Amino acid sequence: MNTPPANDRLLRALLRQPVDRTPVWIMRQAGRYLPEYRATRARAGSFLALCTTPELACEVTLQPLQRFPLDAAILFSDILTIPYAMGVGLSFETGEGPKIERPIRSAADVAALPVPDPHTELRFVIDAVSLIRRELGGRVPLLGFAGSPWTVATYLVEGGSSRDFVRIKHLLYGAPATLHALLDKLAQATLLYLNAQIAAGAQALMLFDTWGGVLTPAAYREFSLAYMQRIVAGLTRERAGARVPVILFTKGGGAWLERMAGTGADALGVDWTTDLAAARRQTGGRVALQGNLDPAVLRAPPAVIRDEVGRVLASYGPGPGHVFNLGHGVTPDVDPEHVAALVAAVQELSPACHR
Amino acid sequence: MNTPPANDRLLRALLRQPVDRTPVWIMRQAGRYLPEYRATRARAGSFLALCTTPELACEVTLQPLQRFPLDAAILFSDILTIPYAMGVGLSFETGEGPKIERPIRSAADVAALPVPDPHTELRFVIDAVSLIRRELGGRVPLLGFAGSPWTVATYLVEGGSSRDFVRIKHLLYGAPATLHALLDKLAQATLLYLNAQIAAGAQALMLFDTWGGVLTPAAYREFSLAYMQRIVAGLTRERAGARVPVILFTKGGGAWLERMAGTGADALGVDWTTDLAAARRQTGGRVALQGNLDPAVLRAPPAVIRDEVGRVLASYGPGPGHVFNLGHGVTPDVDPEHVAALVAAVQELSPACHR
Repeated sequence: MNTPPANDRLLRALLRQPVDRTPVWIMRQAGRYLPEYRATRARAGSFLALCTTPELACEVTLQPLQRFPLDAAILFSDILTIPYAMGVGLSFETGEGPKIERPIRSAADVAALPVPDPHTELRFVIDAVSLIRRELGGRVPLLGFAGSPWTVATYLVEGGSSRDFVRIKHLLYGAPATLHALLDKLAQATLLYLNAQIAAGAQALMLFDTWGGVLTPAAYREFSLAYMQRIVAGLTRERAGARVPVILFTKGGGAWLERMAGTGADALGVDWTTDLAAARRQTGGRVALQGNLDPAVLRAPPAVIRDEVGRVLASYGPGPGHVFNLGHGVTPDVDPEHVAALVAAVQELSPACHR
Repeated sequence: MNTPPANDRLLRALLRQPVDRTPVWIMRQAGRYLPEYRATRARAGSFLALCTTPELACEVTLQPLQRFPLDAAILFSDILTIPYAMGVGLSFETGEGPKIERPIRSAADVAALPVPDPHTELRFVIDAVSLIRRELGGRVPLLGFAGSPWTVATYLVEGGSSRDFVRIKHLLYGAPATLHALLDKLAQATLLYLNAQIAAGAQALMLFDTWGGVLTPAAYREFSLAYMQRIVAGLTRERAGARVPVILFTKGGGAWLERMAGTGADALGVDWTTDLAAARRQTGGRVALQGNLDPAVLRAPPAVIRDEVGRVLASYGPGPGHVFNLGHGVTPDVDPEHVAALVAAVQELSPACHR
C-alpha cells in the first residue's frame, strides 16, 4: 500500500507535478454504456445490489480498465449510499432515478437522522475499496468519492431527483436553521465516510456537488461550499507517506472557481460551459483542473471527438495540472468505441502539452 | 402611439436613464399562478387557443396589471409561435409541455421549413399586440418577445422539451451545417416577427435564450449568440421617435454577459446564479441589467421576500440601469399575495437606489 501506483499520472497531475501526458479518466466510466456492465447489473438483480455487494462493485469498477488505457479507477458506488445507510428507504426505480420513501422535511426529521458508521452501515463500500485496491495490483490509482452535503440533501428533502428544487429551497429561504442542521449531519457523515475510504486505500477523492449550480452565489457559499470546505479541512490528506488529493466539482459552478480553490482542495472539476483557459486564469495555478469535454461530443463521429479533445487540451494550454475528463458523466447511449476514440486522442495529442 | 407611456420607468431604465424607483415586472406575470388566468384558460379550452385568440391573449396580458402596480405589460404568447406557424404540428399536452409532431432533424427537413409571414401566419400575435396597446391606453409600456433561434431550434429538433439535448447536440457536433441552416431560417423568421411586433406597437423587446446555457462557450457564440446578434442588428430600433430597447436573456449565461453586451442589445437579463454586482462590473455600464431574484423566494414568507428583494437591489447598487425581475419565470404554485409582497418591496426599498 505504501508504493505509488505504476501509473501515477493522475496523482501527479492533481498535485500539479510534471507528467509525460495528460491523464484521463471518465466520470461514470463504469456504467450502462458498457455491455459488460449491463450483464453484471442484470446478474446483480438491481442497481442497489450492485452497489452493496463488494465483489460486484469491484467487478464493474475494473471493467472500463480492461477496455481502455485509462489512468484511474473510480470506485463504483452512488452518491446516495449515505442516505441508504441512514435508513430513509432508498430505492432506484428503473428509468425514474432514485426514490426516498421517508423524505426529510422538518427539524424533527433531521434530529431523528442517524450519522452512519462507515465501518458497519457502509461497510460494503469500504470493503469494495479494499478489494478494488487488491485487484488493481497497483496499476493505476483508485479514486473514492461522495456527494456534497448540499447535493445529497436535495435528494433527501425532495424525495428523489428534482427539476425546480421546490422543497429544499422552501427550507433554505423559510427555515434555514433546519437545512443547516441537515447539512451539518451530512457533512459529519461524509467526512467519516471519506476518511474510511482513504483508510481502506482510496488514493484520491472527489466530492460531487451536482446541484450546487442551482443556488444564488450567496446561498452557494452558505449552503454548499461551506460544508465542502469543512470536509476538505477534516480529511486525512496524507496516508502512508503519500498525499491524498481531493477534487471538488460543482456542476454549473464556473463563476465560483476562485472561491472553490480557497477551500484548500487540490483540484477542481470544471463542466463544459466554462473554458479551461478562463478557469485557469481565475484560479491562478492554485489548483489542478479536471475536465471538460461536453459529454454530447461522445455521440459524434470519432474524427469530431478527436478535434474536440484537441480543443479542450488547447484551452487548458501547456504545463501540468490538467486531468482530462468529460464535463459530466458519460451517458448510457454512447458507443464504447467512441470512448476508446476519446482516450486515444488524449494519449496522442496531449504529450505536446508537456514538453 | 407617439406619446411615451404615462409610466415610462421601464423604458428609461432599459436605456440607463434616471428613474425615481426601480421598475418591476415579472417573467410569466400573466400565468397559471393567477386564478383569473386559469379561468380564462379554461374558457379558451386549450393553451394554444389562448395564444391564438387576440382577445383572450389581451385579457390575460392585462390581468396581472389589475392586481399589482407593475411597470410593464408583457405580451401573453409563447416562444413556440414560430414553430406553430411553420406547421410542424405543435401541441401542448397538459403537464408534459410542448410536443412537435414532425421534428426537424435532416437537411431536407430544414429545407422544407417555411419562413412564416408574421402578417398572415402569425397575425394572431400581431393583432394581440395592437389590441393590448389600445387597451393599455398608454398606462405602462408593452414588451414584445420571441425565443432565441437556438432555443426554438432545441424544441424543433428534440420534438419537445429536453434534459440532455441529445438530438440537437448530435447535429451541432455531427452536422453543424444543417443546424446553421435551421438557425438561419429561424433568425430570419424571428426578425420579421419581432419587427412586426414593433410595427404593431411593442415598445420594448426581449429575446429568451432559455437553453443557451447548455452549450460550451465556443458553441454558444457560434450557435446562439451569433444569431441573436443578427436579430439585434436587424431590428427596428426606433419607432415614432422613440427608441425600442431590446433585452437579451440567456439562462445560465452569467459568464458570457460581456460578449452579450457586445451585440448592441440595450439590456441583459441575468438569472439568479450570477450576482448583479458581478454582472455590472463585467458589463461596465454598457447595458442595463434585468433580474434576478431566485423564483423560489416567492414561496417563502413575505418578510423573507422583502429581505431578498433588498439583497437584489443592494447587489445592483445605486444608479440607473436596473429593471427588477425574477431570474426566471414565476411558477404556478406561487401565492399571488407573495407576488404582491415582491412588488411592494421593490416600490418601498428601491427609491433609495435612485437619490
